[in-house]
Amino acid sequence: MYIFSNVLGVFVFDGSFQVVDELLFKNGEDYQNREHHIEIMQSKYKNLEYPDETGVKNILLHFKNAKFLNGFYERNLQLTKSGIRNSVGDDTLLVQAINSIGELDIIVSRLAKRFREWYELYNPETSVFLEDNERFIKEILEKEKKDLLKELNIDVYSSMGADFKEADLVPIMGLARQIGELYQLRENLAEYASKLMDRLCPNVKAICGTIIGAKLIEHAGSLKRLSEMPASTIQILGAENALFRHMRTGSKPPRHGIIANHPLISRAPNKLHGKIARALADRVCIASKVDYFHGKFIGDRLNKELEDKFGAA
Amino acid sequence: MYIFSNVLGVFVFDGSFQVVDELLFKNGEDYQNREHHIEIMQSKYKNLEYPDETGVKNILLHFKNAKFLNGFYERNLQLTKSGIRNSVGDDTLLVQAINSIGELDIIVSRLAKRFREWYELYNPETSVFLEDNERFIKEILEKEKKDLLKELNIDVYSSMGADFKEADLVPIMGLARQIGELYQLRENLAEYASKLMDRLCPNVKAICGTIIGAKLIEHAGSLKRLSEMPASTIQILGAENALFRHMRTGSKPPRHGIIANHPLISRAPNKLHGKIARALADRVCIASKVDYFHGKFIGDRLNKELEDKFGAA
Repeated sequence: MYIFSNVLGVFVFDGSFQVVDELLFKNGEDYQNREHHIEIMQSKYKNLEYPDETGVKNILLHFKNAKFLNGFYERNLQLTKSGIRNSVGDDTLLVQAINSIGELDIIVSRLAKRFREWYELYNPETSVFLEDNERFIKEILEKEKKDLLKELNIDVYSSMGADFKEADLVPIMGLARQIGELYQLRENLAEYASKLMDRLCPNVKAICGTIIGAKLIEHAGSLKRLSEMPASTIQILGAENALFRHMRTGSKPPRHGIIANHPLISRAPNKLHGKIARALADRVCIASKVDYFHGKFIGDRLNKELEDKFGAA
Repeated sequence: MYIFSNVLGVFVFDGSFQVVDELLFKNGEDYQNREHHIEIMQSKYKNLEYPDETGVKNILLHFKNAKFLNGFYERNLQLTKSGIRNSVGDDTLLVQAINSIGELDIIVSRLAKRFREWYELYNPETSVFLEDNERFIKEILEKEKKDLLKELNIDVYSSMGADFKEADLVPIMGLARQIGELYQLRENLAEYASKLMDRLCPNVKAICGTIIGAKLIEHAGSLKRLSEMPASTIQILGAENALFRHMRTGSKPPRHGIIANHPLISRAPNKLHGKIARALADRVCIASKVDYFHGKFIGDRLNKELEDKFGAA
């Protein structure tokens, strides 16, 4: 007698491939635990064997019957859904958070530019003096125009800014408040991403920091795929255009991709960039493998090696 | 004896162009009221006359003295500053508000796209079902996942969305809340712009609505400049590229610029666009002149004319 299982259940067939006994799965979870059901069947019938190739063909002919069609359809749909549902891991969430942070960076700088243009009608001196957008918005929200001008030793009457009526101040300050909250949201998302990385890939985080580490994972597709990549691929991840240009036209190959923004590289003199990128990619490669297999924290040791070679980041 | 005034004060010169008497301005406001000071001087000396061309030349030679340099510099700086300060009118504020609304539209749609991508890991069914971004965000913020799914007759266990832990929900809902607030801000700014237009140009607003009206003013530079434009210019305001292409290459001239988005035009069949644009620009031209000179409200009459011709907008 033969034992056979598919998404519908566990079946026992006799020598002429007729169903002798069956154990139908009630839901997708039963299918996930099919080993258990197979064991039950095996303990019930002692002489069960797995069918050979011809056997399987005959058994599949049995399931070709239209009465099974709906069952297969339903169960497969269910399994696909649960597959999708369970495919959301920490790395998926990390990629989403990082992408949103990148989007917020662009958006906030556009809004801040727009805000400055408007606000400069009211108080041009402060806007020109405070170049950093985040600090500028913060000061604007906390202090009044006359106090801001006093800090610059400018009399409010000799300012070039117009006097705004209260009704004209409300909308522009509403815009400022919104920009301030977007900065806050960006900070919250960065903190969240950092926590996700502590759990998911502490070693990669120790070497690259949150943003670069997350971008590497995003570009690779997942931590698993990053951990399968050789160091040389990690080194130029994100520089695909330059790589293919190199292969097509023989131009210089890229020295680094996403990791180019790492402080170790961006601070070093240009001629060392390639060398540092290689060493850095080596460590990321090791770190991602350790992280994927939930190994110990070796980020500090890897960082130490880099520091000894190239100075503190 | 001659009377002469400049930014420094009012001066009386004798026949040999020596200063006999002077009345110095204390600040910029005194200069604005110089007529008053001149009258004081004229009532003091009965036989004052304005110098002729040679006289002016001699008087200016007197002011060439280096001791006046600083006074001229300070007073002119002050006057320029107050000129800038007073140049901010309702139309300047209107243009800023409208530009910010345009920016917010772009930004909110980018953020909403980003949000959907993230949120679809959690609850894809609701995101696919609710296509309108604003309503989507509103529903998300008000209701829980299981209630949202219930509305679509989907069991929460057969949803393809993953179960998010509370810690994973906090950042994504923070993003949703922020998008909701940006929608609110956009609404507030639109209301503000609408109020500004009620004050500044009720007739233009009646014909074009807030957004198109404000864009016309922005493009013209100010309400004054819009009111000085002929209808044919207003008709193609914002279609400069097409106009110059027409002049250069002889391609078809543009039929309309900013006003192309007016419901009267966008709803009409294509072959009528030019005709309606012309009629519309005529009315805007009239309305802007009436508004600039603070005339009566004739927007309803102008609208009536358009309606009689082309049906209700």
